[in-house]
Amino acid sequence: MSIKVTVWNEFVHEKHNERVKEVYPDGIHNAIAEYLKTQEDMIVRTATLDDEEQGLSNELLDDTDVLIWWGHAAHNKVKDEYVERVYERVMKGMGFIALHSAHFSKPFKRLMGTTCGLRWREIGENERLWVIEPTHPIAQGLGECVEIPADEMYGERFDIPVPDELVFIGWFKGGDVFRSGCCYRRGYGKVFYFQPGHETYPVYYQDEIRLIIGNAVRWARPVMKRELLGGIHVPTPIEKI
Amino acid sequence: MSIKVTVWNEFVHEKHNERVKEVYPDGIHNAIAEYLKTQEDMIVRTATLDDEEQGLSNELLDDTDVLIWWGHAAHNKVKDEYVERVYERVMKGMGFIALHSAHFSKPFKRLMGTTCGLRWREIGENERLWVIEPTHPIAQGLGECVEIPADEMYGERFDIPVPDELVFIGWFKGGDVFRSGCCYRRGYGKVFYFQPGHETYPVYYQDEIRLIIGNAVRWARPVMKRELLGGIHVPTPIEKI
Amino acid sequence: MSIKVTVWNEFVHEKHNERVKEVYPDGIHNAIAEYLKTQEDMIVRTATLDDEEQGLSNELLDDTDVLIWWGHAAHNKVKDEYVERVYERVMKGMGFIALHSAHFSKPFKRLMGTTCGLRWREIGENERLWVIEPTHPIAQGLGECVEIPADEMYGERFDIPVPDELVFIGWFKGGDVFRSGCCYRRGYGKVFYFQPGHETYPVYYQDEIRLIIGNAVRWARPVMKRELLGGIHVPTPIEKI
Amino acid sequence: MSIKVTVWNEFVHEKHNERVKEVYPDGIHNAIAEYLKTQEDMIVRTATLDDEEQGLSNELLDDTDVLIWWGHAAHNKVKDEYVERVYERVMKGMGFIALHSAHFSKPFKRLMGTTCGLRWREIGENERLWVIEPTHPIAQGLGECVEIPADEMYGERFDIPVPDELVFIGWFKGGDVFRSGCCYRRGYGKVFYFQPGHETYPVYYQDEIRLIIGNAVRWARPVMKRELLGGIHVPTPIEKI
Repeated sequence: MSIKVTVWNEFVHEKHNERVKEVYPDGIHNAIAEYLKTQEDMIVRTATLDDEEQGLSNELLDDTDVLIWWGHAAHNKVKDEYVERVYERVMKGMGFIALHSAHFSKPFKRLMGTTCGLRWREIGENERLWVIEPTHPIAQGLGECVEIPADEMYGERFDIPVPDELVFIGWFKGGDVFRSGCCYRRGYGKVFYFQPGHETYPVYYQDEIRLIIGNAVRWARPVMKRELLGGIHVPTPIEKI
Repeated sequence: MSIKVTVWNEFVHEKHNERVKEVYPDGIHNAIAEYLKTQEDMIVRTATLDDEEQGLSNELLDDTDVLIWWGHAAHNKVKDEYVERVYERVMKGMGFIALHSAHFSKPFKRLMGTTCGLRWREIGENERLWVIEPTHPIAQGLGECVEIPADEMYGERFDIPVPDELVFIGWFKGGDVFRSGCCYRRGYGKVFYFQPGHETYPVYYQDEIRLIIGNAVRWARPVMKRELLGGIHVPTPIEKI
Repeated sequence: MSIKVTVWNEFVHEKHNERVKEVYPDGIHNAIAEYLKTQEDMIVRTATLDDEEQGLSNELLDDTDVLIWWGHAAHNKVKDEYVERVYERVMKGMGFIALHSAHFSKPFKRLMGTTCGLRWREIGENERLWVIEPTHPIAQGLGECVEIPADEMYGERFDIPVPDELVFIGWFKGGDVFRSGCCYRRGYGKVFYFQPGHETYPVYYQDEIRLIIGNAVRWARPVMKRELLGGIHVPTPIEKI
Repeated sequence: MSIKVTVWNEFVHEKHNERVKEVYPDGIHNAIAEYLKTQEDMIVRTATLDDEEQGLSNELLDDTDVLIWWGHAAHNKVKDEYVERVYERVMKGMGFIALHSAHFSKPFKRLMGTTCGLRWREIGENERLWVIEPTHPIAQGLGECVEIPADEMYGERFDIPVPDELVFIGWFKGGDVFRSGCCYRRGYGKVFYFQPGHETYPVYYQDEIRLIIGNAVRWARPVMKRELLGGIHVPTPIEKI
């Protein structure tokens, strides 16, 4: 059965910044969706902040298996009630993939319970993404490392909970390292944070990056969707043992 | 240097329920504080929901190394802005110990990013608390397990992030198990969830339970307190390497 | 592509103990293989201690994707050089599933680096296996818990490294708990320890237990097989960065 | 009570290689011991491969709280029976600190259960050691990172089990990263792997490196020493529940 992927993007920089417009003329969401649409096992939609209900309607979310999130300039414009919608779907099993500056997005911070702060620098330095868990599904098809010619630097210490699985560590020419690929289980859902991909660099057109995002979608796919657990009252033991 | 502990309790059941009043006439907070005050390395205060600013003033929190939290009936009465105060102190290094029904308290859920749902049953069954990590600081002074004559049952699946360290697993006579002692790092702070201790049972007077809470306070003590990390801009590499 | 499974059993009790012979007339290995052979995606073989090279020839191991291991009375009869063969295949990607008393088998202890000691009792008490990670591949198709009418008790503290993923916790009527389903990555291989299944109880005929073992085979399947990593000398940086 | 530390070194390079002799004229063990002896809470001894029983007598090991290990050229000369002695003490609670090329030492590999392979290069490039867990006891007294002017490169993928706690990640100028500070619980003992410190560089004289090793000794100190757990037979439930 196909995986229903929704690529959400705030879609701000691409409309107002000439340099970004050149790199992602149709928006980052479409650059990512373009690749995912080539995958036979995926049904791909996009959504943006300017859409009705900020692109986060209950209808769309209920029909989404994996939500990819890109945001940067407009984190605070996303309404809290829509953030709760995303959070609740993850609890029930929806996968959530936070890309790059989405480390500071409301849904990601909501799921982590930490500040998600980090160090950053934008001088176009190159990054090398090292594969720490070569047998992890998200790392399939890669060699030992991935070269990214120019990227924004994100550096440690990254204020996140210890990842359940650490798939990638990034090396930056200027002297920094970063836990660049982090897996979490949250509720019945899976969460993947993936660091590469600034708006001013064509990172989302790079083959290996696209491969990783596709792998992550398959990994984050819900194995089951269930109703939210509350406190479940069990008046008596399941059976007399 | 002494550890400044604040024992916060909603203090509701003890005022309105005769059975609870009998067990904890001065409130659960005072039953816990009574023991901690015998510890030479601790300075102990209590706070409750009826205090000014719900017992969560900035002054008190800034002067607290470890905050112990008990709540059950009034979770929703705790104001969100005070929850943020607690959350921010944990990010900066304050320890946070959530007891029993505080699994559903706002600060604990804020720190976990999950529903924290569980199964429960109240038939006064006995619990046996098994020590899974005998070398953990929180388990020092205990034998292989701790017998609790009567407790409310909390059962799996407990919807929490995978604990960084799992210290105790609880066995319940009626057929359930529970991850009863769970350690987390969050920001610069440490969080401990400890399951035993319903309001209708004298669990907080039991020697081993008190020992564990005292151990947990020492473990959760901040090793450092720092200002909140935001995104830290590092315009150039630290130094020319 | 099919998964090549080899079910290895020391096959001792079943030949010498009348009670065991009644429960597993063809040996535990065949009881397990019988089920796995019904799975269309698996090619199943069995091997025992009395086979040539103790059933652990290089030819067989090189042609095995997942090795299931059952041993109890004859752990020490397994030759160290054959244990190394198993260990090396796991390093290269072969899956390894240790059942019940295989906690004390040489290959499992070799892979864990701990004593793997535990508490045990054999009074035929019932066990309830609780699902801790309902979204884990090994737990698919199960409800909240699995009832095992009679089993040998294995109890904490179980001297293992902290599992990478803890899928099941066992509850025993006599008052014990156990980390009954533990996942590890070791080298390029995956290791699963699964506690149920004493030789005197028909546990390996139970539907849910068989389902779990089948799930574990699929989970442990190698995503890749590689040559053993030694220290890899890299005389110069990968490329001039 | 004082911590009894034994610094074990194969002591080979320092006797036969002029360059190493210049850097560590009294051996790496004495460079490390020299610092630890300034610590009031430690009693420090050294031992080398040429000592009786290869410096690993039962008497010495029984009187050791934390064993620091340095080896490189002579891993295979260490007798297996002495490796078992070290392993058994760790199971009972002794701390074990493996430095640099001790990643391939017999005791470390015995405790990990993996190949412990890695990538390496020796061109004297500089390393920057990033603090990933600033609240960890081993990181106390450090800033955000530690600069090492020249070190041998050790690079990922490092074939180890996922660390229980990852304290440091190393950045190397030539383009590599490494999990440079890794904590494990094994049996009742604690294990710390620390990457910096080649024999041809004065790394063990550097203040921050010495501080880290001292911190690690205190962290690895046994909280308790116990007899080895075997399979413990518990004929009947602890008590009638």
